Amino acid sequence: MKFIKFWGIKSEIRTIGIDDGPFEPHKRGKVLLVGAVFRGGHWLDGVLSTYAEVDGTDATERVIEMVNRSRHRGQLRVVMTGGMTFGGFNVIDIKEIFEKTGLPVIAISRKRPDMAKIKRALKHLPNWRERLSILKKAGRLYPVSTKQKAAKIFMQIAGIRQSDAEKIVRITSTRSLIPEPLRVAHLIATGVIRGESTRGA
Amino acid sequence: MKFIKFWGIKSEIRTIGIDDGPFEPHKRGKVLLVGAVFRGGHWLDGVLSTYAEVDGTDATERVIEMVNRSRHRGQLRVVMTGGMTFGGFNVIDIKEIFEKTGLPVIAISRKRPDMAKIKRALKHLPNWRERLSILKKAGRLYPVSTKQKAAKIFMQIAGIRQSDAEKIVRITSTRSLIPEPLRVAHLIATGVIRGESTRGA
Repeated sequence: MKFIKFWGIKSEIRTIGIDDGPFEPHKRGKVLLVGAVFRGGHWLDGVLSTYAEVDGTDATERVIEMVNRSRHRGQLRVVMTGGMTFGGFNVIDIKEIFEKTGLPVIAISRKRPDMAKIKRALKHLPNWRERLSILKKAGRLYPVSTKQKAAKIFMQIAGIRQSDAEKIVRITSTRSLIPEPLRVAHLIATGVIRGESTRGA
Repeated sequence: MKFIKFWGIKSEIRTIGIDDGPFEPHKRGKVLLVGAVFRGGHWLDGVLSTYAEVDGTDATERVIEMVNRSRHRGQLRVVMTGGMTFGGFNVIDIKEIFEKTGLPVIAISRKRPDMAKIKRALKHLPNWRERLSILKKAGRLYPVSTKQKAAKIFMQIAGIRQSDAEKIVRITSTRSLIPEPLRVAHLIATGVIRGESTRGA
C-alpha cells in the first residue's frame, strides 16, 4: 500500500499530534513524548505518553508502540508529529510509522528545516549516515498555508496524498498556525517537565 | 474580602482546572498535580504542573505556588479543583487558596462526598483533626446541573457567590458533565503518568 485514500475528510476527524518535551541536550537521558488525541481541531479525547533516548535511535519504535497500544487506535486516522526528530537527533522514520501503524503520517515544521545545518550536527553522532538517510527518505517538504496572510508552515508526508494532508492540516489548525493536536502536545510536554508550558512548537 | 464580585461572566473567562495524577496509595511518594489553563470551555492556553506528597499536608501550598508563579496569573479569574483532596488525603484548603492567590476557588466532585467514610480514612493519618477541620471549613456542598437530564455534580466554593460559581461551572462544561479545564487536567495527569489517559475525574 502506497497511501491511504480519504473519501472526504470530516471536520471531526480523529488525529494524534506527537511532540517531545524539553531535555538536557547532548547528555544521556530520556525525553518525554506526548501524544494528544483530538477530535477535529477542538476536542482533546485522550493523552498518551512514552519516553525516548536523547540523541538515540528509538523514537520511531516508541511512537509506533505508543500509537498501536492505545485504546484510541481504532478511531485514529492520521498521526502528526512535531518535526522529524525528537530528543535532539532521535530521527523518526515517518514511512516506517506509516507501515507499522497503518496510519498516514504528517510531520510538521514551523520553519523550513536547514538540512546543511542538520547534517553538520548529525555527524557528531553514531550512525549518522543512517539517521541522515531516514531524514532524506521522508521526501519532499511541502509548504502549507493554514491562515490567510500568515507565514506558511511545512510538512513531510507518508502514506497520504499531498492534497488530503493539506486538508487535514488546515481543518485541525483551529487556534494557531499549527494543528491543534501538535500545539496541545507541546503545551503538555513542556508544562509537565518545566512546571509551566512554553509557546511555539 | 469575603468574595470577588463578578460583573457579568464572559464566555471566554480564563480559568485553571487542577487535578492530580495516579499514585501508589498509602506509600510515601509524590503525586503529580496538573493545572490546565483555559479560555472559556474550549481553548487550552497553558499547562502547569507541580508535585505534592501522597497523604501529605502540602497540597494547598503547592497549588498556591503553582498559580502565583504562572505567567497566566494576571488573566486568571477562577481556580477549579478536582475535589478537596489530592494524592490520597492531602487536603486542600480552598479558603486559603482564595486568600493567597486572590482568586475564587470552586472544588468540583462528580459524586456527593461520603463524609463518614472520609472521616474514618482520615483517622489513620497524622494531623487528622486538622485535615478534617479544613474539609469542614470548606462549607456547604452545592449540587449543580451542567447538562439537562444528566446527573448533577457538586461544588464547594470560596471567595465567590453561589450564582457566579454556577454560571462559571456551566459555561466551562462544554464537552462533558464537568468543566473542561478539569476534564483536560485529568487526561493530562493520567496520560503522562500511566502512558494513556483514563476517563472520568
